[in-house]
Amino acid sequence: MRLALCQLDVGEKKAVNLLRAEEMLKEAAAYGADMAILPEMFTIKYNPKLFFIASEPLISETYGMLSQTAKETNMAIIGGSMPEFHMGKVYNTCLVFDKDGEFVGRYRKAHLFDVEFEDFRFKESEVITAGDNLPLIFDEPIKTGVSICFDIRFPEWSRIMMEQCVELIALPAAFSNTTGPRHWELLLRARALDNRCFVCGVAPAHSSSSYGHSMLCSPDGEVIVDLGTAEGIKVVTIDTSEVKKARNSIPIAKLRRTDLY
Amino acid sequence: MRLALCQLDVGEKKAVNLLRAEEMLKEAAAYGADMAILPEMFTIKYNPKLFFIASEPLISETYGMLSQTAKETNMAIIGGSMPEFHMGKVYNTCLVFDKDGEFVGRYRKAHLFDVEFEDFRFKESEVITAGDNLPLIFDEPIKTGVSICFDIRFPEWSRIMMEQCVELIALPAAFSNTTGPRHWELLLRARALDNRCFVCGVAPAHSSSSYGHSMLCSPDGEVIVDLGTAEGIKVVTIDTSEVKKARNSIPIAKLRRTDLY
Repeated sequence: MRLALCQLDVGEKKAVNLLRAEEMLKEAAAYGADMAILPEMFTIKYNPKLFFIASEPLISETYGMLSQTAKETNMAIIGGSMPEFHMGKVYNTCLVFDKDGEFVGRYRKAHLFDVEFEDFRFKESEVITAGDNLPLIFDEPIKTGVSICFDIRFPEWSRIMMEQCVELIALPAAFSNTTGPRHWELLLRARALDNRCFVCGVAPAHSSSSYGHSMLCSPDGEVIVDLGTAEGIKVVTIDTSEVKKARNSIPIAKLRRTDLY
Repeated sequence: MRLALCQLDVGEKKAVNLLRAEEMLKEAAAYGADMAILPEMFTIKYNPKLFFIASEPLISETYGMLSQTAKETNMAIIGGSMPEFHMGKVYNTCLVFDKDGEFVGRYRKAHLFDVEFEDFRFKESEVITAGDNLPLIFDEPIKTGVSICFDIRFPEWSRIMMEQCVELIALPAAFSNTTGPRHWELLLRARALDNRCFVCGVAPAHSSSSYGHSMLCSPDGEVIVDLGTAEGIKVVTIDTSEVKKARNSIPIAKLRRTDLY
């Protein structure tokens, strides 16, 4: 299985972002990718003031572009996320399409980024409504669980995906320049090791609102790919037998004490 | 609060280990420690063949030495662990005493180290019986949760301690030379960041059965102390306001979606 990390340089013009994302996806497919992951809020720069105006209903412009591109390229797409407008509310929503362009499902970010450091404050919940569903899980081309950004801080969330035997946790994200340098790599590596699976976080290229560093970690918690700060694509082969091997060597699922928790 | 990490060089003679542990504890107290942590299986080298013969009932030689030393030094002691004999079974048990030498409680390791790598196989469950109790939690000198070694791979376990607002997770341990270099630091840092608390793992000095590297991590997931491979003591000041600050900046407990898991 060949996976593409699309570290898009997301700007403030939605039309430009959509066109650029489409180009990147086609480039990824040309490199032989079977599945591509876009960043969180790839349709509009991560700025709460822009979310509402850039929001759209589920079946709209972004849905159309992703579905069409998946079909044209014969490549599954994890559509980062977009501000989804529904019943007067805005969600931070990821859309997934299979290689035939069929809609696999949507995931609405469940844990919102509400933090308060001395020098940095952010309250995502002021503009975004949290989703009330579990991670989206699908089977092809590999068993994958989808979550978004801040979700990764909650090991409970990854465990739900491990219980479904996911081989890959896909995480469209946009860590800040406060938390990114300190926590991003550690969290991705930890979840990979905790659950003995691949973890792939894909962020926009570095900017005032994104740390960048799209990253793939192995089931042993090692960094396999780090895209750094600039816009770029990396296509990497994932060998799912590594997941099996890791889970056989330390059979976490079997050794859990679910009688006690 | 001053915490002592006692990286004892544990050998195959129980009497020597007990004498040496007592010396180290007194040395830690002389350095001004308010609480000391000993390694997992500090009474006997981590070798399944030796566990049974070195095992003892709860109230016996090791209990006596720890209680007496705590009282004499006016220092709380987290007594690593010992093979505890009870009703025909052997547990991997940690005993805790307060600064007056009073018994605070015992913790029996709940997750046993059953692993199978290509070049390394270990089945702790063949000789040790798993405990059926939650982590031991106590209040003085700081709110502390106790677990042992392999327990740290299970984020559920640390969450139980976070729910009780522990400021420190104390982890007597003896990671192997297979898993230690690859996972030890990552797991300690991850649990510290996950739960925004201090995590302190204390192992025997490096040997064929111990990676060493007793370590203290901050609530931000940074390594503060790494004792390396040789026998040694490190006494370090812990500022619990860092826990409060970390939990205020990213209020993990508040942001959990316990409605979904």
